[in-house]
Amino acid sequence: MELNKALEALRDLESTLAVCRHAIGVLSYDGETIAPRNSAVGRGKTTAYLAGIEHELLTGAKTRDLIDTLSASADQLDDCTRRRVTLIRRDADDLTLIPAKEYMDYQQLLAEASGVWHVAKPANDYAAFAPYLERIIDYNIRYAQRKDPTKAPYDVLLDTYEEGACMADLDPFFDLLRTELTPLILEIKGRPRPDDSFLHGCFPIERQRAFSDRLMALMQLNRDDCSIGETEHPFTEGLNKHDVRITTHYFENDVTASMFSVIHEGGHAMYELGSGDELEGTYAAGGSTTGIHESQSRFYENLIGRSEAFCHAVLPIMQELFPAQLQGVTPQMLYRAFNVAEPSLIRTEADELTYGLHVLVRYELEKRMLSGALKVKDIPGEWNRLMHEVLGVTVPDDRRGALQDTHWASGLVGYFPSYALGSAYGVQMLERMQQDMDVYALVAKGDIAPITAWLRQRLHRYGKLYAPADVFKNVFEAPFDPSKYTTYLKDKFSALYGL
Amino acid sequence: MELNKALEALRDLESTLAVCRHAIGVLSYDGETIAPRNSAVGRGKTTAYLAGIEHELLTGAKTRDLIDTLSASADQLDDCTRRRVTLIRRDADDLTLIPAKEYMDYQQLLAEASGVWHVAKPANDYAAFAPYLERIIDYNIRYAQRKDPTKAPYDVLLDTYEEGACMADLDPFFDLLRTELTPLILEIKGRPRPDDSFLHGCFPIERQRAFSDRLMALMQLNRDDCSIGETEHPFTEGLNKHDVRITTHYFENDVTASMFSVIHEGGHAMYELGSGDELEGTYAAGGSTTGIHESQSRFYENLIGRSEAFCHAVLPIMQELFPAQLQGVTPQMLYRAFNVAEPSLIRTEADELTYGLHVLVRYELEKRMLSGALKVKDIPGEWNRLMHEVLGVTVPDDRRGALQDTHWASGLVGYFPSYALGSAYGVQMLERMQQDMDVYALVAKGDIAPITAWLRQRLHRYGKLYAPADVFKNVFEAPFDPSKYTTYLKDKFSALYGL
Repeated sequence: MELNKALEALRDLESTLAVCRHAIGVLSYDGETIAPRNSAVGRGKTTAYLAGIEHELLTGAKTRDLIDTLSASADQLDDCTRRRVTLIRRDADDLTLIPAKEYMDYQQLLAEASGVWHVAKPANDYAAFAPYLERIIDYNIRYAQRKDPTKAPYDVLLDTYEEGACMADLDPFFDLLRTELTPLILEIKGRPRPDDSFLHGCFPIERQRAFSDRLMALMQLNRDDCSIGETEHPFTEGLNKHDVRITTHYFENDVTASMFSVIHEGGHAMYELGSGDELEGTYAAGGSTTGIHESQSRFYENLIGRSEAFCHAVLPIMQELFPAQLQGVTPQMLYRAFNVAEPSLIRTEADELTYGLHVLVRYELEKRMLSGALKVKDIPGEWNRLMHEVLGVTVPDDRRGALQDTHWASGLVGYFPSYALGSAYGVQMLERMQQDMDVYALVAKGDIAPITAWLRQRLHRYGKLYAPADVFKNVFEAPFDPSKYTTYLKDKFSALYGL
Repeated sequence: MELNKALEALRDLESTLAVCRHAIGVLSYDGETIAPRNSAVGRGKTTAYLAGIEHELLTGAKTRDLIDTLSASADQLDDCTRRRVTLIRRDADDLTLIPAKEYMDYQQLLAEASGVWHVAKPANDYAAFAPYLERIIDYNIRYAQRKDPTKAPYDVLLDTYEEGACMADLDPFFDLLRTELTPLILEIKGRPRPDDSFLHGCFPIERQRAFSDRLMALMQLNRDDCSIGETEHPFTEGLNKHDVRITTHYFENDVTASMFSVIHEGGHAMYELGSGDELEGTYAAGGSTTGIHESQSRFYENLIGRSEAFCHAVLPIMQELFPAQLQGVTPQMLYRAFNVAEPSLIRTEADELTYGLHVLVRYELEKRMLSGALKVKDIPGEWNRLMHEVLGVTVPDDRRGALQDTHWASGLVGYFPSYALGSAYGVQMLERMQQDMDVYALVAKGDIAPITAWLRQRLHRYGKLYAPADVFKNVFEAPFDPSKYTTYLKDKFSALYGL
């Protein structure tokens, strides 16, 4: 095949794959937000069919030839095209390991498992969900073993989410979090708890919806390209750079749950919306690894949203929308209330300091699940034991325990470490960013644009062009250093609690 | 091909087509409800791709052979299978007239046109929408001419929506409406207008949403199978019998607009939800023609929802949700307020008496558009002229004129007459139903179940198995008689206005 023809065929392939994924994405978004409960089986069939097309396209001889042709001319390709070929080859190799029927059945399983989880979680019915989770774990082990029988299945999975991640690196990373942060958490336990009762009055959902609009405006998210929906477990669906969906979940007695979900998902959305125009429709569009993606969501959620400076910007909006509830509150009171650090049950609502330990618990569980040492039926017991051991909390039910996250129901096994890694990456980005601008002076004025512009310039516009190691070079011009994360947390919370 | 093999191939074909339509349906629903504005182009690409698969499947040699094999053994097939083959052949013949590329481009056009219409309507910007409408009309004329060059294009289109419908029958039907109803409308103009001010106070959207939930409960719509969303122009998307979506549109100063949308779309939903289990996934699932479908929505909206009996059932709910607004209102006052008959601008909000004339105006316009006598750019002027001539109203802007309906933007050209036909069919159904039960005694008690059961037994469970003429035999055991519709309207409104 001639090179020009091959490049054209590459664009055609990418465009068809983009179309399949767009349809699957809309179906999934719909299923997670507004679809009626009994729709899961029908959605599963359609998703499986589309996944079958994707499988056929990626594993077919035509695509194999195309990849070989382009790889043979690698030196004539620009960096972007070379990366696209690498990414396609990786997916093609992956899918070649799985027969089409098995892959389609798995997609159907995931659609149904998600439907079951949506019912099982509020009903606190782990037993209803367990058979689905068993099949999901089995599939993931099978896939990992086929991909690299010489490696531990969990290492194979970790690498699919965060290119390069492995237990040999993550074990010391989580050890660091645990050893550095646990003493501080214990020390804070002995201190008076800051007052955050004003965040737990009655916040009517309708007003909270208006607050979400204001937060999205503050983040300068273009609503013509980005919508907001409601779901059990907030997530972002980036369909393309003109169609990104964030979601949230409102609780009447807690204005912060949705607020920080909106900012967190807004961070994911920023990344998707900022992907370079020239990447649109190609395999390199969107965001890099899940860890890098979480670095953006956690950056906006915590380094911006839970900063003292942000309290100056957001308090007037909150007081406008909730005048009675926030009467007499000062930015300093808000800052302390946003950062009450205490061991709790729900990861997504955890404070910045204890958050990493919630992820550690999931990392430990996944490690054991994937090695076969932990059976699915034993997860809740082990979850509760670890939560008590690591965070000192007693889990009252599975709804607030092993059923709380949607990830496993969606087939995301090995994803969780991305949250902790992303949080750590974000701190190092902030440090570098502060050399170029007075970040918190801008935040205090509610002027987020220069911050987003900086991230867009160094990260967002590159889409999937770079793996984490190269992202680090572009963004913070140094290797990843997790001690910056623990130092940041220790400094912030020591100051907050006067330690 | 052996018959058993052919029947298996038929099920496979139907199942794949169902999957494509399911995906297209979800994409379309998403686009009409919650997708961000700039998503239309991306959605169009995906819809076009899926439409291309549909085209390929239906027009391919394999399907042609399959249809021929099954048709040759027609006498060995049961009625249902024979009908499925007929319906597939009809679609296959249709698509064979249109090259795949042209069909896919048209689907892309429709996705974009719908996006443009959603912006153009509130902006009152007909000029922005006109180029899209021109291309839609051109496509429809081209299709009709290819399908049957000996027939007027509009007749070809009418038949695709309402099997058997043609101008030769519709002209006298609409003449009947005009000549029978216009004198009554004029007479009512001279009478005092019943008070409906209590329906036009302030009805907070959040309370109206709760009211929709109550209405759906009253109609016994199973929310696990049927959801409600919000959109510019209410519609129902029936994806399968466990996944039906109704939509509504709330106006704070008018509680009836959404109320009757919910009941109307609820009627469509009933029909889809009641489709026989044995039809699921086949070509005969869902509802029969558009006229028969509208007979169900208009039946619940008007013959149930705007009856005096229903006022007894719904008033307590309304007074519970809107106590201040409806203080002192009696069922009789509500009945008169629900049935204020006066020429108005918006079809979907028109009273039962003048409604048919709104449809007549669209019928006249479509006739002329399809014959080439009316250019797209001249539609607003002609719309306004006809609205004045037929209903005596002055159209102030295109938002409340030629841009009000979503149908043309969705490619539905020739659909409108279904609304008037469906309204008339419904009256004849009611008459037959009343021989079997005291319909309004049940309605007054809020007991809708026996009514739905009757319709399910005679109509809903048959899906697409019967064309209108046979539906009439099953449901009202007589040919269609439109004079029953005009008689019903004259009786109802003469009594209401004491004429």
